[in-house]
Amino acid sequence: MYQTNCMVAQSGGPTAAINASLAGVISGVKESSAYQTCYGAVNGILGIQTENYLNLTERIADDETLKRLIATPAMYLGSCRHRLPDFREDEGPYTHIFRQFEKLGVGAFFYIGGNDSMDTVQKLSDYARKTDSSVRIIGIPKTIDNDLCMTDHTPGFGSAAKYIACTMLEIAHDTFIYPVKSVTIVEIMGRDAGWLAASAALARCGYSDAPHLIYLPEAPFSAEQFLSDVKAKLAVCSNVVVAVSEGIRDLSGRYITASQASDQFGHLQLSGAGKALEFLVKENLGVKVRSVEINVLQRCASHLASACDLSESFALGRRAVALSASGVTASMVTISRTGDDPYTVSYGHAPVKEIANLAKSVPRSWISEAGNDICPQMYAYLRPLIQGEHPVTYKNGIPDYLPVTHLKPQL
Amino acid sequence: MYQTNCMVAQSGGPTAAINASLAGVISGVKESSAYQTCYGAVNGILGIQTENYLNLTERIADDETLKRLIATPAMYLGSCRHRLPDFREDEGPYTHIFRQFEKLGVGAFFYIGGNDSMDTVQKLSDYARKTDSSVRIIGIPKTIDNDLCMTDHTPGFGSAAKYIACTMLEIAHDTFIYPVKSVTIVEIMGRDAGWLAASAALARCGYSDAPHLIYLPEAPFSAEQFLSDVKAKLAVCSNVVVAVSEGIRDLSGRYITASQASDQFGHLQLSGAGKALEFLVKENLGVKVRSVEINVLQRCASHLASACDLSESFALGRRAVALSASGVTASMVTISRTGDDPYTVSYGHAPVKEIANLAKSVPRSWISEAGNDICPQMYAYLRPLIQGEHPVTYKNGIPDYLPVTHLKPQL
Repeated sequence: MYQTNCMVAQSGGPTAAINASLAGVISGVKESSAYQTCYGAVNGILGIQTENYLNLTERIADDETLKRLIATPAMYLGSCRHRLPDFREDEGPYTHIFRQFEKLGVGAFFYIGGNDSMDTVQKLSDYARKTDSSVRIIGIPKTIDNDLCMTDHTPGFGSAAKYIACTMLEIAHDTFIYPVKSVTIVEIMGRDAGWLAASAALARCGYSDAPHLIYLPEAPFSAEQFLSDVKAKLAVCSNVVVAVSEGIRDLSGRYITASQASDQFGHLQLSGAGKALEFLVKENLGVKVRSVEINVLQRCASHLASACDLSESFALGRRAVALSASGVTASMVTISRTGDDPYTVSYGHAPVKEIANLAKSVPRSWISEAGNDICPQMYAYLRPLIQGEHPVTYKNGIPDYLPVTHLKPQL
Repeated sequence: MYQTNCMVAQSGGPTAAINASLAGVISGVKESSAYQTCYGAVNGILGIQTENYLNLTERIADDETLKRLIATPAMYLGSCRHRLPDFREDEGPYTHIFRQFEKLGVGAFFYIGGNDSMDTVQKLSDYARKTDSSVRIIGIPKTIDNDLCMTDHTPGFGSAAKYIACTMLEIAHDTFIYPVKSVTIVEIMGRDAGWLAASAALARCGYSDAPHLIYLPEAPFSAEQFLSDVKAKLAVCSNVVVAVSEGIRDLSGRYITASQASDQFGHLQLSGAGKALEFLVKENLGVKVRSVEINVLQRCASHLASACDLSESFALGRRAVALSASGVTASMVTISRTGDDPYTVSYGHAPVKEIANLAKSVPRSWISEAGNDICPQMYAYLRPLIQGEHPVTYKNGIPDYLPVTHLKPQL
């Protein structure tokens, strides 16, 4: 006999795997005796405030639809970037949210998101405890940045890393073709952590060393050292490819942007690290140079998702449902690595207060001493996460994703 | 009994399909009784001048290697951007090239490339006729820009168009998620012709109208009209996506770049059309705006190649071999469309003098009267070209492309 219903929402930036976690929740609810209906709040926590819900148990009823949901990029439920106030200062939003839970018979709330979203999980958990509410609050991790604590890695990261590695290899092929020296700078997302830029190294294979240089935010960036690095590589390799995190900073912590190049070369701020490095090479080395910004493609390219990532994301969604049914709350589900080769993991959970608003950087010891490459530990860590290709169904030549008409993409 | 050998080279910019044409030549030679060995000149016509050849008959001997070649991006033989001089002014390069042909027993030369490469085909053909050489010179078309005359479309275009359409759909999903108005500008390659930017329209499907606006070089661009177009779309749709060709120009023919925006807003030239439109929206509409430049990814993403494109490119390579064996010269192989639905084609050839240095624009009647979208004829033309997915083999999570160590990607 069903005890209650439950609710799920998504928050923060898109990934190729966040709908796999949503599918995991829906699948977990279907097989659970604890919950009857799974509601989805549209646009994160805002959807509860505006009472905008989807009945996911009805909408995603058959296996075919569930499979399409797993493969669909960005967020089926839409997102928000909304921070709840401290409930000791403003209780309004909390009383409304928990009244909604009561009205809909919601016994558990799952929030799929990153560091900021875990702040919401913690605040809702604290409020539930304070008011003796029995609603379990569980976070499900998601971020291409891979910067959540207490979990070996984060759903969404593996797919973004796979996209970056594959794209980097294809860009490398693009650079090989002319018999003239060239430098290609590829800017990769990751404002505070270099995990994504590091994953460019997975493009290296039997015949290609690209990217030849990798710069992460965790190692201070020096323009002089960079130019000297590039010069040294150009001496032994015609077509140098550089992977750079958008978040690189100088010794004093200032971001390297095209505007900083402006002080030297008269350019105004228009762009980020990739353009800044392009200017540096152009002005100082006089060699053919181009910068490529992978941009949003790395977080929404479901056509190249990592099968490992999608399957783990799905499993975490199911695990969240099972844990909540057993009474766990104020927690985030986590992945623990139990082996690198063969790669094995187990799923667990950790108190959300040890995760919310914190960030996990790349250990300095996983970056080369010169700060321009990664170390073997990083390869061992990254490689399993991009394995496997999730099948995509195409229709009329484009992926047949699950329609998101409820987000009103057209009127 | 074999009469002679033959030679092939690649020139111009990379595409995902140019190696499929190379594979077609190699396959054609294998099955032909006219040619024994197929030589590949490295880095286009420059490879003959520097006598840098590969024995492709030996290198690409088995079917497995041929299949990997078909799926490998950019140019297996490397490329060049080199224009031969007029032989009436400088005969030197020509006597060297034809002496090489003689030395290697080359009876036919195949040059895979775009408009500029067809200029080389024409000049070599003219020189062969003048000197009564029996070497047949055949061009095989290739360009993501789709701007070659005398052929319905160009190998490489379909794969780039498929990449753009798929990516545009994924970018659209990325824009739907926040409940705030936004404009996303996607800059697409095509300096002189709008075929590629037009193919973004193939992303439209049952639930998404993105891109909502499309601007091509063939219709003069007006900033006022653009802002009014975007405003009108924002009134009925929250997340407006704009596809813009890098080659858009104003009424007087000047390219729209970020530097032109500088006259009005004080920005210096740093970037192209996408950035210029981003500034226009930011300064005038005060709405959340982002620009994305798809960049080289659209020409090297073999992981998302069009099966239709690769199979036609392969067929044209084979056709070139057969035609040359029957004595055809001074020609480019062509595709004629014999049906739209079902889509059917036949292969033929046309005099290269009607192709070299000419460009095929999008007909104005295929662009909407307002100059901000495409017409139904364009859909019917484009849709067949992106159909089908070519299987890609992955190894260690990245595509298992054919090594190009001979291009010295690392030392």
